[in-house]
Amino acid sequence: MTDDERYMLMALAEADKAFEAGEVPVGCVIVCEGRVTGRGHNLTETLQDVTAHAEIQAITAAAQTLGGKYLTKCTLYVTVEPCVMCAGAIGWAQVERLVFGTDDPKRGYQTYAPKALHPKCKVTKGVKEDECRDRMRTFFEKHR
Amino acid sequence: MTDDERYMLMALAEADKAFEAGEVPVGCVIVCEGRVTGRGHNLTETLQDVTAHAEIQAITAAAQTLGGKYLTKCTLYVTVEPCVMCAGAIGWAQVERLVFGTDDPKRGYQTYAPKALHPKCKVTKGVKEDECRDRMRTFFEKHR
Repeated sequence: MTDDERYMLMALAEADKAFEAGEVPVGCVIVCEGRVTGRGHNLTETLQDVTAHAEIQAITAAAQTLGGKYLTKCTLYVTVEPCVMCAGAIGWAQVERLVFGTDDPKRGYQTYAPKALHPKCKVTKGVKEDECRDRMRTFFEKHR
Repeated sequence: MTDDERYMLMALAEADKAFEAGEVPVGCVIVCEGRVTGRGHNLTETLQDVTAHAEIQAITAAAQTLGGKYLTKCTLYVTVEPCVMCAGAIGWAQVERLVFGTDDPKRGYQTYAPKALHPKCKVTKGVKEDECRDRMRTFFEKHR
């Protein structure tokens, strides 16, 4: 298993926490030089707060762990393509690398804000894609 | 003075709190049916958190005040054009109306995520524009 796959499994474990809480199952892990510095899962229903996406919480956590707001040596793993809001946050934080599992054509930044990330941010997608997509499908079949 | 000008002056008072704390001076007020339900000012340096923009904090506050995450009957006043991240949050919250003071051509959503807001969101710009822009200019002349 590659490091990317290993960290994406951690992000999927976060997504499962969201699923169990009745939340859209998205999970995120931020890794800095081999160390997990932030985690988060979607909590928008629980907190009644649209800003409580997995990535936003993980970014806040990582900045606290590292003692600074720029995540220039970090890789952010998230199970689903970030939305416009989260891509904007990833851009502000100057995240070095973004890895996501499955595309979100309805809400994803690639369609609606393709320049939101920092120009130097490297993007890898499709890691554990089937697992990430299946979580979402199962959720929406159950809840909507 | 119009209601829009009155509420923008409140947002400017929030921006002044940011200025005094050495933060980029942006302030935000959210109003729901004549009642102020959320306020915020930029705290990214103080909190060392890129997500601590004025709008994000005001949206979280308004959702707590109203007891629900959707701000469908709210107007969001902010001194400077929202960035991609904040426009995404304003979109998720389904804010009914956005009023901002001055454009931000370098970071503003109009250039980088023009479809981020909810399709029904009405936008008014240029309210107290000179005051909003002058706060920013003074800050950047002093700090950079």
